[in-house]
Amino acid sequence: MPKMNGNFSKLEKNYLFINIAQKVNAFKQANPDADIIRMGIGDVTLPIAKPVIDAMKKGADEMGVKETFRGYEDSGAGYDFLKEQIAAYYKSFGADVKASEIRINDGAKSDCGNIQDIFAEDNVVLVTDPVYPVYVDSNVMSGRKIICADSNEENGFAAMPDGNVHADIIYLCSPNNPTGSAYTKDQLKVWIDYAIANGAVIIYDAAYEAFITDPDIPRSIFCVEGARKCAIELCSLSKTAGFTGMRAGYTVIPDELEFPTSDGSMVSVSQIWGRRQGSKFNGVSYPVQCAAYAVFTEEGMRATRENIAYYQENAKIMTDTLTRLGIQFTGGVNSPYVWFKCPNGMTSWEFFDYLLANACVVGTPGAGFGKNGEGWFRLTAFGDRDRTIEAMQRLEKLIGSAS
Amino acid sequence: MPKMNGNFSKLEKNYLFINIAQKVNAFKQANPDADIIRMGIGDVTLPIAKPVIDAMKKGADEMGVKETFRGYEDSGAGYDFLKEQIAAYYKSFGADVKASEIRINDGAKSDCGNIQDIFAEDNVVLVTDPVYPVYVDSNVMSGRKIICADSNEENGFAAMPDGNVHADIIYLCSPNNPTGSAYTKDQLKVWIDYAIANGAVIIYDAAYEAFITDPDIPRSIFCVEGARKCAIELCSLSKTAGFTGMRAGYTVIPDELEFPTSDGSMVSVSQIWGRRQGSKFNGVSYPVQCAAYAVFTEEGMRATRENIAYYQENAKIMTDTLTRLGIQFTGGVNSPYVWFKCPNGMTSWEFFDYLLANACVVGTPGAGFGKNGEGWFRLTAFGDRDRTIEAMQRLEKLIGSAS
Repeated sequence: MPKMNGNFSKLEKNYLFINIAQKVNAFKQANPDADIIRMGIGDVTLPIAKPVIDAMKKGADEMGVKETFRGYEDSGAGYDFLKEQIAAYYKSFGADVKASEIRINDGAKSDCGNIQDIFAEDNVVLVTDPVYPVYVDSNVMSGRKIICADSNEENGFAAMPDGNVHADIIYLCSPNNPTGSAYTKDQLKVWIDYAIANGAVIIYDAAYEAFITDPDIPRSIFCVEGARKCAIELCSLSKTAGFTGMRAGYTVIPDELEFPTSDGSMVSVSQIWGRRQGSKFNGVSYPVQCAAYAVFTEEGMRATRENIAYYQENAKIMTDTLTRLGIQFTGGVNSPYVWFKCPNGMTSWEFFDYLLANACVVGTPGAGFGKNGEGWFRLTAFGDRDRTIEAMQRLEKLIGSAS
Repeated sequence: MPKMNGNFSKLEKNYLFINIAQKVNAFKQANPDADIIRMGIGDVTLPIAKPVIDAMKKGADEMGVKETFRGYEDSGAGYDFLKEQIAAYYKSFGADVKASEIRINDGAKSDCGNIQDIFAEDNVVLVTDPVYPVYVDSNVMSGRKIICADSNEENGFAAMPDGNVHADIIYLCSPNNPTGSAYTKDQLKVWIDYAIANGAVIIYDAAYEAFITDPDIPRSIFCVEGARKCAIELCSLSKTAGFTGMRAGYTVIPDELEFPTSDGSMVSVSQIWGRRQGSKFNGVSYPVQCAAYAVFTEEGMRATRENIAYYQENAKIMTDTLTRLGIQFTGGVNSPYVWFKCPNGMTSWEFFDYLLANACVVGTPGAGFGKNGEGWFRLTAFGDRDRTIEAMQRLEKLIGSAS
């Protein structure tokens, strides 16, 4: 009889955001007239820019004509026209990445979850806590040992490495999900030096790079010296261009990155990942790749930057409210996430229920992201302007009157 | 230092089809004027039907308007509008599958490769040989023991189970890739009885079901009694509707399917798979799901059936040629694949090189699919009509003159 993978029993039964969705649905059923404002899941709300939609439709039309129809890609790694555009995008903020080092995927979450396939099971995984659950869950499923570096009030929710602790695989997310903190170039250099000293690999999630405004915060780990010797970068168009429902992202593995396999011989990380993807993935939909291409054109960049500016203004409205209320927070700058301390000593889930019941606002309990998240709460700036203002007014009324 | 997954060194360095692409590219560079006909990789050539393209464009337009924009799906399992359409499609050929038992994916290859994540590593995997490489490679990467049931000349390349051999996870593909053979209802019943007696799970790849014309050949394993107790079915729109470059498929797991986990307690396969997908996948592009929906409408079905009929006529041209040449084959009926014995005792790769060099026709060496494939060769009926005729004329000239 087949035995199921027992590691799944070590996971929470449901993914955090599915739990939240279920709680919200239950509340909706009990309160059908409630005017709920969702600021929980990190999903965008603005429509996709017109040049991007037009490019997708053009790609779709090509699929309907014999001469321009496209089937399987030879490599499944993405079309050169898109990869070259992304390489130029990297260059625009000072990261030197070759088109051939980029692989297109159906969103960073897939690669983020699947990348662990290529590493042995006895590696020690280091995550910063609070943490995006995918880093942990995908490694728990494979039975790996996971250790944490604490992101907390003391370090501004930007954990730094401890030279006395050994790790083989390090997950970093900057700007951070969920805390909104972002590493400076100097801080990232410390992580890179630590990784090289440990011979470790850094899996760097840059999904929120488009929100960076501060020139001291690198848009890519490959803006920092030494990264090519130790880092893999994952990025996504979800937040850059509203692709949460379109599904496209990319992964960068430097050509020179190599690590030993079980017999001690060195192997190319890029080649092993290519082999994994060649067997378990078949590339991204051609019209989606056409849409992604358009994001990186001048016209597409202009249009998508307008959407990001809109969300950044939302974030400012949120942080202004928290400042007025005297609530401690991180993020909101260089990040679409605002991470704040639950008022009146409430736990994260207590505040979740309190906010939902009394203000009909949905957020994400910090405790869902790890032990250092307890007592903290995440709201996203991806909402509608009017709804963001409305939510902040409700919050101000609720907390102002309670305190 | 991170150790790479050592199981990768047990794989061929490249995925079969990437090897072939490299060989063909080398030939092209050496012979820039060669008029190459590609009948190797199982890729379609006809454009996607107009109602399907129109639906995708409509979906793209919705993504460009705030009121109809769609971001993340709550579940990532696919929209109900599509799943209900697929459930109705199943019903049309006598398989009772609930919409809620279907999960939409970005092509069957992904789920086919990833499904092994949910099983323990010490399960014994049974594949029929010759075999679609993904079943083997994805399990080799996880270090599982793999055993084979032989598909060969004696059994018409339709392997049947050996009651004396134990297996936990059984991969079946019918109509078969690469051999084109298809199991009858009675044969599938034998496999199901064997699986139930072993307490095994069958992972059933139905990617080519749309090519079935014989009423004795079931379009789904769920047309056969007992399948709900032991089977997971994977299917794809790649061959049904030319989606190789569009990327959509679906996986069916019956609600009642459960197996023990490491502590002996029974767990729901569907729930564990949902947990896996919830952590490592984020759903399929909305406009792609709109396109997939249109495939299953009356208009879409009519249009896609025309394409399949075209490929079926190609297959007939190919099998007629082989019959004239006195070459033994399977497939071509109920299947887009024609699987034949290499002439003059050549090995599969010898014939690959011979055919490429002397007829500029690319096929797939049977040996690439396993030991029983040695001396056999696969051609696909997915080509252009004129090119298929031309390829068969070249083959007839080459083999006719050589024999």
